[in-house]
Amino acid sequence: MSSTPDQEFIHDFAIMSTFGATDGGGVDRQAATAPDGAQRAWLADWLTTRGFRIEFDSVGNQFGLYEFIPGAPYVLTGSHMDSQPLGGRYDGAYGVLASAHAAARVVEGLHRSATVPKFNIGVVNWFNEEGSRFKPSMMGSSVFTGKLPAAAALATPDARGVTVREALETIGTIGSYPGPQPAAYAEIHIEQGRTLENEGITIGLVESTWAAEKFEFIVHGDQSHTGSTIMADRKDALLGAALLTVFARELSERFSSRYPSAPLHTSVSEMTIEPNSPVVVAREVRLHLDMRSPDQSVAIAASDELLAQIPLFEKRANVAIKQVAAHSWGNKDYQRQGVKLAMEACEELGLTHREVMTVAGHDSVNMKDIVPTVMLFVPSVEGISHNEREFTRDEDACAGVDLLARVITKLSLGDL
Amino acid sequence: MSSTPDQEFIHDFAIMSTFGATDGGGVDRQAATAPDGAQRAWLADWLTTRGFRIEFDSVGNQFGLYEFIPGAPYVLTGSHMDSQPLGGRYDGAYGVLASAHAAARVVEGLHRSATVPKFNIGVVNWFNEEGSRFKPSMMGSSVFTGKLPAAAALATPDARGVTVREALETIGTIGSYPGPQPAAYAEIHIEQGRTLENEGITIGLVESTWAAEKFEFIVHGDQSHTGSTIMADRKDALLGAALLTVFARELSERFSSRYPSAPLHTSVSEMTIEPNSPVVVAREVRLHLDMRSPDQSVAIAASDELLAQIPLFEKRANVAIKQVAAHSWGNKDYQRQGVKLAMEACEELGLTHREVMTVAGHDSVNMKDIVPTVMLFVPSVEGISHNEREFTRDEDACAGVDLLARVITKLSLGDL
Repeated sequence: MSSTPDQEFIHDFAIMSTFGATDGGGVDRQAATAPDGAQRAWLADWLTTRGFRIEFDSVGNQFGLYEFIPGAPYVLTGSHMDSQPLGGRYDGAYGVLASAHAAARVVEGLHRSATVPKFNIGVVNWFNEEGSRFKPSMMGSSVFTGKLPAAAALATPDARGVTVREALETIGTIGSYPGPQPAAYAEIHIEQGRTLENEGITIGLVESTWAAEKFEFIVHGDQSHTGSTIMADRKDALLGAALLTVFARELSERFSSRYPSAPLHTSVSEMTIEPNSPVVVAREVRLHLDMRSPDQSVAIAASDELLAQIPLFEKRANVAIKQVAAHSWGNKDYQRQGVKLAMEACEELGLTHREVMTVAGHDSVNMKDIVPTVMLFVPSVEGISHNEREFTRDEDACAGVDLLARVITKLSLGDL
Repeated sequence: MSSTPDQEFIHDFAIMSTFGATDGGGVDRQAATAPDGAQRAWLADWLTTRGFRIEFDSVGNQFGLYEFIPGAPYVLTGSHMDSQPLGGRYDGAYGVLASAHAAARVVEGLHRSATVPKFNIGVVNWFNEEGSRFKPSMMGSSVFTGKLPAAAALATPDARGVTVREALETIGTIGSYPGPQPAAYAEIHIEQGRTLENEGITIGLVESTWAAEKFEFIVHGDQSHTGSTIMADRKDALLGAALLTVFARELSERFSSRYPSAPLHTSVSEMTIEPNSPVVVAREVRLHLDMRSPDQSVAIAASDELLAQIPLFEKRANVAIKQVAAHSWGNKDYQRQGVKLAMEACEELGLTHREVMTVAGHDSVNMKDIVPTVMLFVPSVEGISHNEREFTRDEDACAGVDLLARVITKLSLGDL
């Protein structure tokens, strides 16, 4: 008895989830680590078996290419296979496998119906979307779309000083392929929120991004003895960082009561503390502070209140707080015709759907700036993400693959 | 022209300060690192040249022994040569070199006057007083005084998993010597505070320790996406840790206005954050919280207020805060007859002096529990310590060596 396409997808997804599997049911598969390398080899094998040609570009983006018309541009579809430390099985990996399955089905269907599409079809596994090992996140698609020079990406070190180039050479997934000429892009991802689950809807049609205000601060203090130094002499960088952290949450609480319809999400989740000794007042703390809202004016107002507060924190902790980087974006739209095409595909398949915004960044945020892009979500159970307990039900995952195949078919025929 | 004893001391101290020297004028010579090993070899050579026999015990305490009476107990004098990361040149290292110079002078003086003392004389360089690489601090003297089993110390890993035993074997300073039988102990150290400098006094006679309440907490949260997770679903361990950090300072501010004569020193200076990623809400933070006061009732009252506050922090950050270790001590006295002996030595040398308390822990805090112990301070400029700019003026450093030699002479003759 042969298996159904859904069963094959579930089977392959279970195999993928073994690369970097953790005891807690998740994966730890940071960019260009051994499990990332092993999974890339597995994907290469899977795609090659189905007639796709494998290429790596100079920053380790992995392409599986199927050429119908020599020299024609490609409809690309993909996501990323790297994860956060102790991350979930679905974030990114689901989208890459969905793309591979959908692309293979489309190729097979076009051959079966003797249809020559307008564009070639390619699967892409973007390098280092997560940014946990190498910063910034979305590195591979940023280079591909011309937003980040390849040389800068390759020279980026991880916390132990290993560069992207060295790490990619170690796992052997670096090449000289210049990359396919894209005609359109499609990506599917788990929602990482609760909207779809709460409303019992299978598909999210992503129409825009939340606005974000992201800061990197360095708090400059001075080392001293935690016991004997009198309080007035202390320049406590960790106290400065803690004041920023608590205030970020306070801003969220304050704005959420002011503007209940446009929540403000805030967080500080990473600190680099020097010297980080139990008996030495910290001389320096480097931290990221992240604020996001569906309404850009809310994010900007919160950002203003934060910056106005900093002199008070500097005085209380006797430190200097320097803003070393800021990264902000407004509500960025995906192309309307892409949302419409995906909506039609949902209707044809009888899938429930609604338009949504994405809070998280995705490689499609880069791709939509160079080609028409379709971004799709499937539900996340309880909205849990970046966590070993991340979960999407099999029927939703399989419905997403069906939809993606239909979207790729339309895109390959030039419907956009 | 031969150099004076003071010039020799200053010369040798300059040599010592080259081991692990940093660009900022300090030292980075954590326990059982290569610079610590090199300095121990230098000290062994220095002492051997002056007729001392070198021994290492099973946890890397280094002894330089001079035997007048075979089998008699030893007057021990010493401190530690390990430093904090980017620490100062004086903390510990000054006391070991002062001990070596003072002991050598006393030995020479006793021989010159053909005096046979009551006790032998030994110099000790305690292993891992700082506790920055291996916890707990004061490890070597804790094992020597029976407070910590040697096996537990040897099995202690650093942050990279290297154990004390492995690190000591790497630098070759581990032995099987059981340790000398102590009769008395003397230690000299920089004050690491401003009392002596503010009052223009050369010598601090340490009569007791401040009380301390030290906590180790683990804040348990859960990983989630910093962008897309709705605020109500977040279990933010770093927010919990930041609330504790800010509240520790608030306690110090509150108590210092209530009890101006008994200041409360508080700090959080180290956090271990998991996974410490800019896009993942922290699932766990481990931190130390330290509170000290010259008045134990103040430290205990502050500790009570802290613990009463924890349920509010747990609720606000949606986390569980577990106290995994607590370490507290009252105002512990040094033996009065030791303070008196040192005061008489000051008077004989014409050195200004006053009784002081020590806020910081020292190996002498362990030693005073097993033998009569004399603890001496010399001034720290601006009270700066655990910092590359730590400084003590040459005249104060040399006066301290003179005083220590006189104290050791008295102790070796059985004056205590």
